[in-house]
Amino acid sequence: VEIRVVEKVLGANDAIAAETRKLLAEHGVLMVNVMSSPGSGKTRLLQRTLARLSPDIAVAVVVGDICTTHDADRLAEGGTPVVQINTEPFGGDCHLAAHVVREAISGFDLGAFDLILVENVGNLVCPAEFDIGEDLRCVVLSVTEGEDKPVKYPLMFRVCDVALLNKIDLLPHLEYDRELALASIRSIHADIEIFEVSARTDLGLESWLDWLESKVYAKRDRR
Amino acid sequence: VEIRVVEKVLGANDAIAAETRKLLAEHGVLMVNVMSSPGSGKTRLLQRTLARLSPDIAVAVVVGDICTTHDADRLAEGGTPVVQINTEPFGGDCHLAAHVVREAISGFDLGAFDLILVENVGNLVCPAEFDIGEDLRCVVLSVTEGEDKPVKYPLMFRVCDVALLNKIDLLPHLEYDRELALASIRSIHADIEIFEVSARTDLGLESWLDWLESKVYAKRDRR
Repeated sequence: VEIRVVEKVLGANDAIAAETRKLLAEHGVLMVNVMSSPGSGKTRLLQRTLARLSPDIAVAVVVGDICTTHDADRLAEGGTPVVQINTEPFGGDCHLAAHVVREAISGFDLGAFDLILVENVGNLVCPAEFDIGEDLRCVVLSVTEGEDKPVKYPLMFRVCDVALLNKIDLLPHLEYDRELALASIRSIHADIEIFEVSARTDLGLESWLDWLESKVYAKRDRR
Repeated sequence: VEIRVVEKVLGANDAIAAETRKLLAEHGVLMVNVMSSPGSGKTRLLQRTLARLSPDIAVAVVVGDICTTHDADRLAEGGTPVVQINTEPFGGDCHLAAHVVREAISGFDLGAFDLILVENVGNLVCPAEFDIGEDLRCVVLSVTEGEDKPVKYPLMFRVCDVALLNKIDLLPHLEYDRELALASIRSIHADIEIFEVSARTDLGLESWLDWLESKVYAKRDRR
């Protein structure tokens, strides 16, 4: 038994991602790939985003986890259509690949949606390597993870369009150098968008929502 | 160009890991593979472990990161011999493999050491799949990551002998269900050792150190 070289696997992945991107463009649907370490607060952040996003934006969610439907259950609470991908049957894959996401969104009537939020598997390394056909890539970084993660995991911050610094409600209880953290992100990706937020208290969420909504409307207008 | 099947790659990895394990046994050196998400506090925990471990235990450290020598610099501060592995030249590998660790420890005079602490790449998924020849596997989980990580990343908790719940100094500022967190770990691995610690305040560190020292002495006595 032999498997294709990694370059070919990535090539096949990219071809599927390109098809997905074309399909989403036809329907004017924006897809955002949300990535982070385990426990950065991705799910709560998406819950708060769903709760506060303009009601004229129709959202669907795709959630990737190795196993369990914990995150899907939480995200579906508000009535949003959610598809849970479990990668355990695929060898416990540590990332979402394009064919898995294509399969997940095939059940949605794309004409009925403006935005698909994809919560990737919790992993600051591998998901950054796989194009899933998204328009925008978002990395969530909890301030409890320290200031130096961008320079230690540079690919993730290089490929992302926006970084959400989460859990800023905990800052009074941490030794955290905010300027160092921001400089660390900018040293890898100078013009990345950065929003400092707390999904627990909604602090800073408004700027993130404004930015996201503007991207959704721009894509919808090109439909 | 074709690459070997994943099974063969893992088989080759296991063969090298077995050689490393034999070599360490001959010298009575205990090797501990420390794994976690990015930002769980592994490095600080190892710093405090090095600072407080019994002085009759000679320690060396191997640190894996995709890039930078931040962690090695911090761990070498107390004078401990440290080898930094950067996986970026190896395609930015998201885990340490057995051949990389063998190379890293080849520079140590094993007769002069009792303990090798290996800080793996920050990733709660992939490192769990690769035997590096260690005696014990340790997972560090920050309480800021929430209670459900063991059931969402079960392989890591299944393969580990000990779990360190870190950053418990932050508990007063979190919504954290301690009983749920412990039950979550035990649902995956019933008899795993668990220590609740704070590497910032040294809280709970004594029990972890006692346990680790007993493992070092047991291995040394079999030399």
